[in-house]
Amino acid sequence: MKLKVYAYRISQPCRAVIIFCKVNGIDFEEIRVDLFKGQQLSPEFKEINPFQKVPAIVDGRFKLFESHAILIYLACSFPGVADHWYPADVSRRAKIHSVLDWHHSNLRQGAAGLILNSLLAPVFGLPLDPQAAAKSEKLLSLSLSKIESIWLKGNGRFLLGGFQPSIADLSLVCEILQLELLDEKDHSRILGPHKKVQQWIEDTRNATRPHFDEAHDMLYKAKAKFQLLRSVAANGERESSIKKVLLSKM
Amino acid sequence: MKLKVYAYRISQPCRAVIIFCKVNGIDFEEIRVDLFKGQQLSPEFKEINPFQKVPAIVDGRFKLFESHAILIYLACSFPGVADHWYPADVSRRAKIHSVLDWHHSNLRQGAAGLILNSLLAPVFGLPLDPQAAAKSEKLLSLSLSKIESIWLKGNGRFLLGGFQPSIADLSLVCEILQLELLDEKDHSRILGPHKKVQQWIEDTRNATRPHFDEAHDMLYKAKAKFQLLRSVAANGERESSIKKVLLSKM
Repeated sequence: MKLKVYAYRISQPCRAVIIFCKVNGIDFEEIRVDLFKGQQLSPEFKEINPFQKVPAIVDGRFKLFESHAILIYLACSFPGVADHWYPADVSRRAKIHSVLDWHHSNLRQGAAGLILNSLLAPVFGLPLDPQAAAKSEKLLSLSLSKIESIWLKGNGRFLLGGFQPSIADLSLVCEILQLELLDEKDHSRILGPHKKVQQWIEDTRNATRPHFDEAHDMLYKAKAKFQLLRSVAANGERESSIKKVLLSKM
Repeated sequence: MKLKVYAYRISQPCRAVIIFCKVNGIDFEEIRVDLFKGQQLSPEFKEINPFQKVPAIVDGRFKLFESHAILIYLACSFPGVADHWYPADVSRRAKIHSVLDWHHSNLRQGAAGLILNSLLAPVFGLPLDPQAAAKSEKLLSLSLSKIESIWLKGNGRFLLGGFQPSIADLSLVCEILQLELLDEKDHSRILGPHKKVQQWIEDTRNATRPHFDEAHDMLYKAKAKFQLLRSVAANGERESSIKKVLLSKM
């Protein structure tokens, strides 16, 4: 039975899992769980992931969620995944775990918190929260600095000095790509100072093309819709307009 | 050269690493990094962990930080660690990764956020923040419910239905023990409704005794100091008193 990947491509960890499968020739069926329509809350999906979040996978009778755990499982379970994605060597593997753990409490909280509180909250019935967004942006900017000064230190072009990407590169870069949803000014303010991060995003994109851009297509479309929205909506209408845009066909 | 563990036992992930080493007979030198004196900010420690956090380890020339990554590395690198701590089986291992990833964004944020914002902030030069503490408590209570209804579902007494503890049990239980620092009333309000969690804490304590209580001794002492403080300090003096208590010898 083919691997099933439950995903919605607006979600950054979903894109990481999809790109990983495609780049590594893992045959899978993608099952779309539309977060903006609340499909993750259905009783059927609760059977797959009781926490009602994507991504999740079903491999035969085995169910798994949490994207880092999924990436590691796939790297270990499917033949033909090159060693650089998740090295067999215990020390190199440990360093990748270290990056992934760090990601949870730093980059992820910063980037996802900023996008949620400055943009997506209304879709989930929450108010926009400029104060929380500002706090998230601070953590995000600090995280981007640390990626440059610590994780990207080394000879190679990828994290931990790697010459080829690991699951950590994929996971973190997909997280940062979420910032595409911001308006140009905010995007430039945040990413502009981080040239090394920008180059690393390009290198990861190149190492995983054409799947990287293909998996991000829905995000790019959402970005275009937001740009249009910003140009037409008056401030007072903004929250309801955001919801309308996101519920329209992506 | 003996394994070096840089730790401060008030920190919950530090205790998890120390207990793991002791239970598994891993010979190590514990190097105390006093967080309340800011020793994690020293240039010497920055050489060990550029993020200036504990725990961190040095094994020969290999340096590592992030407690989950450390626990996995130790389980894989040292002979004699029983399989149940971090099973070789890819599927069982994947489920443990899933719990550990979930921990980062849920239980950890809830518990650590509550303790920081309601108690420890002044030690780090931050104000107490009742609003943030309330938000953290909500996430914490939800996380404890999910542990009972999802992670502790199964035949065994440990997470994922295990009959013996894994590194996930150790990590999560040490996190919850941090709530010992709260006053009795708050502690009961939060943990009281979760009988299954209470039993699981006892089971984890029993499975790792006497090391569990020994590693928590500093926390129990801090708890006693806080109780004393609460009984004598007027509200206005509270923040500076907390700092004084914590800077006194633990």
